[in-house]
Amino acid sequence: MPKYRDEVDVVLRALADPTRRAVVERLAKSPAVVSELAEPFAMALPSFMQHLSALESAGVISSKKHGRVRTVSLVPGALDVVQLWLGEQRTPAERQADDLGVYLSRTARRRSS
Amino acid sequence: MPKYRDEVDVVLRALADPTRRAVVERLAKSPAVVSELAEPFAMALPSFMQHLSALESAGVISSKKHGRVRTVSLVPGALDVVQLWLGEQRTPAERQADDLGVYLSRTARRRSS
Repeated sequence: MPKYRDEVDVVLRALADPTRRAVVERLAKSPAVVSELAEPFAMALPSFMQHLSALESAGVISSKKHGRVRTVSLVPGALDVVQLWLGEQRTPAERQADDLGVYLSRTARRRSS
Repeated sequence: MPKYRDEVDVVLRALADPTRRAVVERLAKSPAVVSELAEPFAMALPSFMQHLSALESAGVISSKKHGRVRTVSLVPGALDVVQLWLGEQRTPAERQADDLGVYLSRTARRRSS
């Protein structure tokens, strides 16, 4: 699956930076205009725009211009590919623990209902 | 939570490299000795050892020497911090979809039991 691996690579590289993660955290709450998004960062606007551009080319965020204002949003499901990859890296012992957890929560639910 | 943020940062940086991810994928199956681990990579051993050292100082892998052989393992739960962070970045629309999915699967379970 080369496409899947490429996507994991691109998204992980985009997330491996604290400024870009802070942008993702802010956008998870709601879309925002660029000036509002840039405000908390002690950074020149061109540097900040480079971070946005890295996130946009990784497919993590998208932006739309209305008149002179650019609004930025998180792309729904863009981070799922990393969650999928992480799920695949569960060791046999972790999988057993996961299965036990599911079994116990099902048993508890049956007893309480 | 500065410690949590630092951990997310360190683990994501460790994972933002295809060689290091391939090592994690291999170790998710079982622990391995360094020579076996290095074999699939067309890379000088010192460069490969640098990748192992990056993963080890990020707390993603651990290693133990028995005589002249070093065995490397994935640290259980080391990637959980990234999964936690990703979970927090669900947008309101994604959370609604998650809740709907849980509701539907519960309803389906009740109907089938």
